[in-house]
Amino acid sequence: MAALAALLLSTPAHADTLVDNVNGITLDKDGKLVRFTGLVIDSQGKVKQLLDRKDKRPERPDFKEDGRGRTLIPGLIDAHGHVMGLGFQLMLLDLSGTNSLAEAQAAIKKYAAENPEMPWIIGFGWNQEKWGLGRFPTAADLDAAVPDRAVWLERVDGHAGWANTAAMTAAKITAATKAPEGGRIEMAGGKPSGVFVDAAMSLIDSAKPKPLARDLDRAFLLAQQKLIEQGITSIADMGTSIQDWQAYRRAGDKKQLAIRVLSYGGDIDNMALIAGSEPTPWLYDDKLRMVGVKLYLDGALGSRGAWLKAPYSDAPGQKGLPLLTPAQLRNKMVRASMDKFQVAIHAIGDAANAEALAAIDDLSRDLPGERRWRIEHAQIVDPLDIPKFAELKVIASMQPVHQTSDRLMAEARLGPDRLKGAYAWRSLEKAGVRLAFGSDVPVESANPFPGIAAAISRTDAAGQPVGGWHPEETVTRETALDGYTRTAAYAAFAEDRLGTLMPGMRADFLILADDPLLASPDAIRKMVPLETWIGGYRYYRKSEGATVGR
Amino acid sequence: MAALAALLLSTPAHADTLVDNVNGITLDKDGKLVRFTGLVIDSQGKVKQLLDRKDKRPERPDFKEDGRGRTLIPGLIDAHGHVMGLGFQLMLLDLSGTNSLAEAQAAIKKYAAENPEMPWIIGFGWNQEKWGLGRFPTAADLDAAVPDRAVWLERVDGHAGWANTAAMTAAKITAATKAPEGGRIEMAGGKPSGVFVDAAMSLIDSAKPKPLARDLDRAFLLAQQKLIEQGITSIADMGTSIQDWQAYRRAGDKKQLAIRVLSYGGDIDNMALIAGSEPTPWLYDDKLRMVGVKLYLDGALGSRGAWLKAPYSDAPGQKGLPLLTPAQLRNKMVRASMDKFQVAIHAIGDAANAEALAAIDDLSRDLPGERRWRIEHAQIVDPLDIPKFAELKVIASMQPVHQTSDRLMAEARLGPDRLKGAYAWRSLEKAGVRLAFGSDVPVESANPFPGIAAAISRTDAAGQPVGGWHPEETVTRETALDGYTRTAAYAAFAEDRLGTLMPGMRADFLILADDPLLASPDAIRKMVPLETWIGGYRYYRKSEGATVGR
Repeated sequence: MAALAALLLSTPAHADTLVDNVNGITLDKDGKLVRFTGLVIDSQGKVKQLLDRKDKRPERPDFKEDGRGRTLIPGLIDAHGHVMGLGFQLMLLDLSGTNSLAEAQAAIKKYAAENPEMPWIIGFGWNQEKWGLGRFPTAADLDAAVPDRAVWLERVDGHAGWANTAAMTAAKITAATKAPEGGRIEMAGGKPSGVFVDAAMSLIDSAKPKPLARDLDRAFLLAQQKLIEQGITSIADMGTSIQDWQAYRRAGDKKQLAIRVLSYGGDIDNMALIAGSEPTPWLYDDKLRMVGVKLYLDGALGSRGAWLKAPYSDAPGQKGLPLLTPAQLRNKMVRASMDKFQVAIHAIGDAANAEALAAIDDLSRDLPGERRWRIEHAQIVDPLDIPKFAELKVIASMQPVHQTSDRLMAEARLGPDRLKGAYAWRSLEKAGVRLAFGSDVPVESANPFPGIAAAISRTDAAGQPVGGWHPEETVTRETALDGYTRTAAYAAFAEDRLGTLMPGMRADFLILADDPLLASPDAIRKMVPLETWIGGYRYYRKSEGATVGR
Repeated sequence: MAALAALLLSTPAHADTLVDNVNGITLDKDGKLVRFTGLVIDSQGKVKQLLDRKDKRPERPDFKEDGRGRTLIPGLIDAHGHVMGLGFQLMLLDLSGTNSLAEAQAAIKKYAAENPEMPWIIGFGWNQEKWGLGRFPTAADLDAAVPDRAVWLERVDGHAGWANTAAMTAAKITAATKAPEGGRIEMAGGKPSGVFVDAAMSLIDSAKPKPLARDLDRAFLLAQQKLIEQGITSIADMGTSIQDWQAYRRAGDKKQLAIRVLSYGGDIDNMALIAGSEPTPWLYDDKLRMVGVKLYLDGALGSRGAWLKAPYSDAPGQKGLPLLTPAQLRNKMVRASMDKFQVAIHAIGDAANAEALAAIDDLSRDLPGERRWRIEHAQIVDPLDIPKFAELKVIASMQPVHQTSDRLMAEARLGPDRLKGAYAWRSLEKAGVRLAFGSDVPVESANPFPGIAAAISRTDAAGQPVGGWHPEETVTRETALDGYTRTAAYAAFAEDRLGTLMPGMRADFLILADDPLLASPDAIRKMVPLETWIGGYRYYRKSEGATVGR
């Protein structure tokens, strides 16, 4: 990390930079496709000029790069992610590649040695079936690898955790400890064996130490590096806490902020504590801004927390639940809007989407002006409600990969009839709704290319189902690109500086081996950026491996 | 406030500025007095050159000011204050000038009308004796002025509060409400009359709404303006909360930060949340930095919370109490010091001072390097402990005006023998201890000139006692100036940029009508800056009244 920091600090400003001989693609501010072969960047890191093949090149640019015919596209904007969530995920020990208990023990031991300051060793991905162990692993198995620090490892399916003795001691687990409802403590010889199932995992989870500021700082830098390597140059951080924000500011203050973070405060408290009585200015050369607030109106489909108009098909007594009363939702929306904060409402079920739309409708008369209300996910929408998105000018902030991950589960939860308004990108677009696309990282990978592939094909990583799932809801390649660039910027009030490569905009772009407007969905899914530039600096070059820096 | 903000935003950078024809005074980095007649400031707002009468002036400065023989001294640094505490004090309604209930009612009504957004009207300073009322005022008296919003006003002595009906309703006060121990609810006709005495004040205090971010922002700007008008160009903020810090950052982000805030986090939690794993960089052109942490080891003398070695003279059973165990104090000091944060320990009683010194002694061996441990207040020190300050290189951060405010109370609390180490500036200095001077605003006024007068005379605003209280503890004028400039900067690791006017330092200075090295203590006490410059900008000119801006 020290090397990364040093490199970021050392990137110098250039006068004019010319990136020439590229297959350049951008949308203009009206969404029209523009092609170019050269890009001139000014000393402020902004696009100065797009060049056609016949245009004269600047005579003596300060820095010149030959694109050798490769494709150049605007930096991709993830319209919905959780930056610190990704960072903490990246800090965990990943055991999913281990093939035996002994291999896992060796990996755990190595990781503990490499991270002497970590008070707990936390990880995931073990699978005793894959190991051929014929039993659950035990605390003693873990003690053999790390006896002196707490170790806590989640099973590959997330439904069990494996603790060593130090972790159980820290959590005050004894032979007398009872599992909470919905959980089970595995026993061996009359005492807990070390494995905690489902709800019993909370017994250990609650004893984990809170992350220190240095953990937050490290997590942020790891997340930033991962995002940049995947071609994300800006990300809407949906639900920033004060701890998260301070980590972003520390990175900014130390000139380590490379990616652009468009922040939405985690509910009103964080919003007001962080930004005060209005959105913050753009900070650190447009690298950070708190623009709005994220509110949760319901849960998720998988856990049947999404709020539906009619009961779940696979749980007839349940419809999910709203997390806010009508008054609470409207009060929070008014509180934020009066201070000019943008409001982004998490709504997954059709009832939640209808209620979010109703609340926006109720308030729009008293809150004129361009609010750019956002509904996050908008996963299951009653087809009758789709026109309201357009009427109320609500932005649908959606995550294409969720469709491919969720489809079998969604079929079970909803039955065939309700799928008409599920992940209904094309229906929304046809109604006149603007689509902003994102990943919901770390719930899904932040990689935007499988998202683009899903958006245009409705097929998953295996190309399934053949022909696409409800293929009438696919969008064009241009719409997919728009959702990850121009509209993602518009959705965060950032279209005056981000999302396209028109003159005056920040020079955020990717160099790709192939053209995503021509490649097959399968080829798009496998694309990786060769280079990632932000504000006219090349922060990543694949040929240099994971190095971030010019 | 809008005008202030606009002016601060509009102050342009100058190339070379010449302030000429002044009676210029500064200490150099070794504490030697330097005199000059002209000051050249560069485009960065730093001192470029000090000019003697015979030195050649720059030929064409971008801006030139004729000092007309007036005195120029370094901007004064308050080594111990509470910025937001001052700001909130300035937002309160001040009734101390009212001479009748009717006058007070009119003032309350006017203030309420002028502040329509304030959910509660909060103030202080009423005195029914001065009004000749012959009784306590009542809730009905207040309702007549403001019926529709809560009003809560502290009596001049701070020992009673006066609420209207709306405030009592908000606090759920009924005829059945019982006063807590040490408090009394005034009754009239079998129900609370509106006046709450001593501990009963908490019944209403606890119902007050928390300040909103906009209140914090307004309070900060008011405090900043007040400090600049009083000649304070930098202030050590002793116990910054995350809310305070966010207000400072918002001011910085909006280019409204004029004063320099040297911040010490309010205990470890705020320190770590704000600054992370090391002190922040200098932010906003050296206007803000978190350098350390403030810890409280005991309380105050007035409330007998100060921790003494022997019992209070006027309360033989009491010695006060430490607020931290030996282990807690040392753990916090280690936690901060390991991450290179400076530690400032509040210690008022002689036992607290001895314990702070013992803790520093215990840790110094394991924490080498230049720590600049600070003891805040160091009010009552056992003379036997004074040499330890010097041995351990502890900075004594003291508030001269406390001596004049406290002397009669200190005599009662301590008896004559213990006064030998009370406010013992000269004894500490003679032992080789560096003295940083401050105000403890809002406990005292932030005005540094009465502080300088007290430091050199040990007399109060009335010149009492004649000849000074324990005059052997007076310091020289040069030491007083040093405590408010050079050593106050050193005490915050800021001597490389603040505290003197030597070339390369920030051009923070005051223009005064008279020379504080020559004027009488009484004249010094009444001094007010004619101009206050920070970083080469004139933020305040007395002839323009309260206007802040060039």
